[in-house]
Amino acid sequence: MPERLGDPLETPLFERVAIIGIGLIGSSIAHAVRQKNLAGSIVAIDRDTEVAARVDALGLADAIFSDVAEGVKGCDLVILCVPVGACGPVAKQMAASLREGVIVTDVGSVKGAVVASMEPHLPAHAHFIPGHPVAGTEQSGPDAGFATLFHERWCILTPAYGVDPAAVARLQEFWEGMGARIEFMSAPHHDLVLAITSHVPHLIAYNIVGTAADLEQVTQSEVIKFSAGGFRDFTRIAASDPTMWRDVFLNNKEAVLEMISRFNEDLAALARAIRWDDGDALYDLFSRTRSIRRSIIDLGQETDAPDFGRRPGKD
Amino acid sequence: MPERLGDPLETPLFERVAIIGIGLIGSSIAHAVRQKNLAGSIVAIDRDTEVAARVDALGLADAIFSDVAEGVKGCDLVILCVPVGACGPVAKQMAASLREGVIVTDVGSVKGAVVASMEPHLPAHAHFIPGHPVAGTEQSGPDAGFATLFHERWCILTPAYGVDPAAVARLQEFWEGMGARIEFMSAPHHDLVLAITSHVPHLIAYNIVGTAADLEQVTQSEVIKFSAGGFRDFTRIAASDPTMWRDVFLNNKEAVLEMISRFNEDLAALARAIRWDDGDALYDLFSRTRSIRRSIIDLGQETDAPDFGRRPGKD
Ligand SMILES: NC(=O)c1ccc[n+]([C@@H]2O[C@H](COP(=O)([O-])OP(=O)(O)OC[C@H]3O[C@@H](n4cnc5c(N)ncnc54)[C@H](OP(=O)(O)O)[C@@H]3O)[C@@H](O)[C@H]2O)c1
Ligand SMILES: NC(=O)c1ccc[n+]([C@@H]2O[C@H](COP(=O)([O-])OP(=O)(O)OC[C@H]3O[C@@H](n4cnc5c(N)ncnc54)[C@H](OP(=O)(O)O)[C@@H]3O)[C@@H](O)[C@H]2O)c1
Repeated sequence: MPERLGDPLETPLFERVAIIGIGLIGSSIAHAVRQKNLAGSIVAIDRDTEVAARVDALGLADAIFSDVAEGVKGCDLVILCVPVGACGPVAKQMAASLREGVIVTDVGSVKGAVVASMEPHLPAHAHFIPGHPVAGTEQSGPDAGFATLFHERWCILTPAYGVDPAAVARLQEFWEGMGARIEFMSAPHHDLVLAITSHVPHLIAYNIVGTAADLEQVTQSEVIKFSAGGFRDFTRIAASDPTMWRDVFLNNKEAVLEMISRFNEDLAALARAIRWDDGDALYDLFSRTRSIRRSIIDLGQETDAPDFGRRPGKD
Repeated sequence: MPERLGDPLETPLFERVAIIGIGLIGSSIAHAVRQKNLAGSIVAIDRDTEVAARVDALGLADAIFSDVAEGVKGCDLVILCVPVGACGPVAKQMAASLREGVIVTDVGSVKGAVVASMEPHLPAHAHFIPGHPVAGTEQSGPDAGFATLFHERWCILTPAYGVDPAAVARLQEFWEGMGARIEFMSAPHHDLVLAITSHVPHLIAYNIVGTAADLEQVTQSEVIKFSAGGFRDFTRIAASDPTMWRDVFLNNKEAVLEMISRFNEDLAALARAIRWDDGDALYDLFSRTRSIRRSIIDLGQETDAPDFGRRPGKD
């Protein structure tokens, strides 16, 4: 990851930004807002007193609240960084305290369900612009964040028809200030795109790790020892936060189930090719898949160092 | 990866080693044998004249042959580094030229089928000790190799009952000289262990990348752009050599098909949990899978840097 984001702004974009939920994403936003001077002051809101203590120790915020309704008062930007399933309840708690003309956004990995659960609670004077930065690591909590997490990554915004374009432009500038690039799409399309690029990959990673753990013919210690043959790549993804991912799957059910059934159809065809010695069908698929990686690298979304350039733990 | 392997031996373990097939694995062995002085001379054998030219340019060998029968003459160690499906034919070609008391080994990712296809051709005076270093990258060819590829990785040997223990000990010393650790097991057990730790992970990675490429609701360019949400990890594995992997699946059919059916059962249960809103079942699995990664890191088989510590292409 690059070391820096560029020079801080002379004049902040927002007066006072509230970040609700100081985990990986929330703390990364706090770091980036500080470094780039994107807001006059940062309010951190977290229900957990231990998290609040870490936020304090890390100097991530100018004010820390456990109560959402108290914390959002006077803020002109409010960002929900909580699991998708918590967005509705949090929106309800803060609704009455929101300042006139506030921009309310979120970072949830699902958009349709978040919009459905938040929108009914928000006052008409708030500009609601749902968002999703497509960036992350397998780690969570306030110590996991870093300022450059969003650098060169896409952030998808899914505003509804009729939302104030000036508010959208300000939020776009805010994300661009953190190094991100903006893409607009509808919430349902977002959920379909992320189902295949993120949700189903996570599900099958969790699944294969679970399958390996439950085998009776192969011991756990063998799985661990010989994981360098490919398995260990999947364990990275399968080490992601359980609450976050439970909420993602429960809230993007339809798209995820549809993509799983596509995946299953294709896997059945592959298994059949193996069973009937159809080497050409295997070779054909295995050749096609290489070019996609090439494109991802060319687009700057991936390293081209072999094996991700990683170094094992003990070196 | 560590930069060096330790001091070269004063006296080489072998007089003359033949490496057949100078791809990722073959060239890595050549580099390591040179650096550690594990053999008096290195013979590279490759049917491809372009590969031979690269071997020459890289200084990987003392002699280069395209003909297997010519190349192995006088060698006291012969290592087959060709795709699994080519091992039988290569064994047949070299059989009559093998020196008395030679150690013949291979590096194939499948053991049962390799043993079955090689053994019938080998003369009784040769010590046949099948092997598989569990180490690799997604790249292939003579330029992809490096001396430390096997460092801190396991190499599995599957000698048959009755093979000369002194020969086994020498081959063990050879691999340890390249930094590897040795594990012995039966060929069928190897094939089961690798099916779950390597072969099925590769198959599902190839499969999800294929599924994503074929969707009509999501464009290829969207898949590429938003791949940082998890998908890109799978593309690394799905960029591996098509010939090698075709041969792996065709030659480890039974174990792979069995593991796929386990994987499918588990995935069906997960899909059902999603459909019926069983958040506890999801949370439970997603929590269990974290500890396996921890163990892999603790064993030095993986980095604990978030996101593998990788840096995207453009930084
Ligand atoms: N991780 C990624 O790769 C990634 C990428 C893009 C978007 N996202 C989205 O970002 C959001 C946050 O993810 P994260 O990775 O930052 O997670 P995280 O590190 O686990 O942090 C989640 C935060 O939300 C708080 N929280 C959890 N449940 C809550 C509830 N019911 N009410 C109020 N606060 C609650 C947590 O507080 P406690 O400490 O009290 O639990 C914690 O501060 C999620 O919606 C996720 O979908 C994640
Ligand atoms: N890559 C890994 O991660 C990994 C890890 C452990 C073990 N292995 C095993 O190592 C072996 C080699 O893999 P690799 O990754 O080094 O592959 P690679 O880079 O593609 O090299 C394969 C070599 O074998 C030669 N070859 C291919 N087909 C042949 C044939 N029919 N007859 C004679 N030579 C042939 C190739 O020559 P041409 O240039 O003429 O095709 C090339 O020199 C395979 O058995 C594989 O299962 C691989």
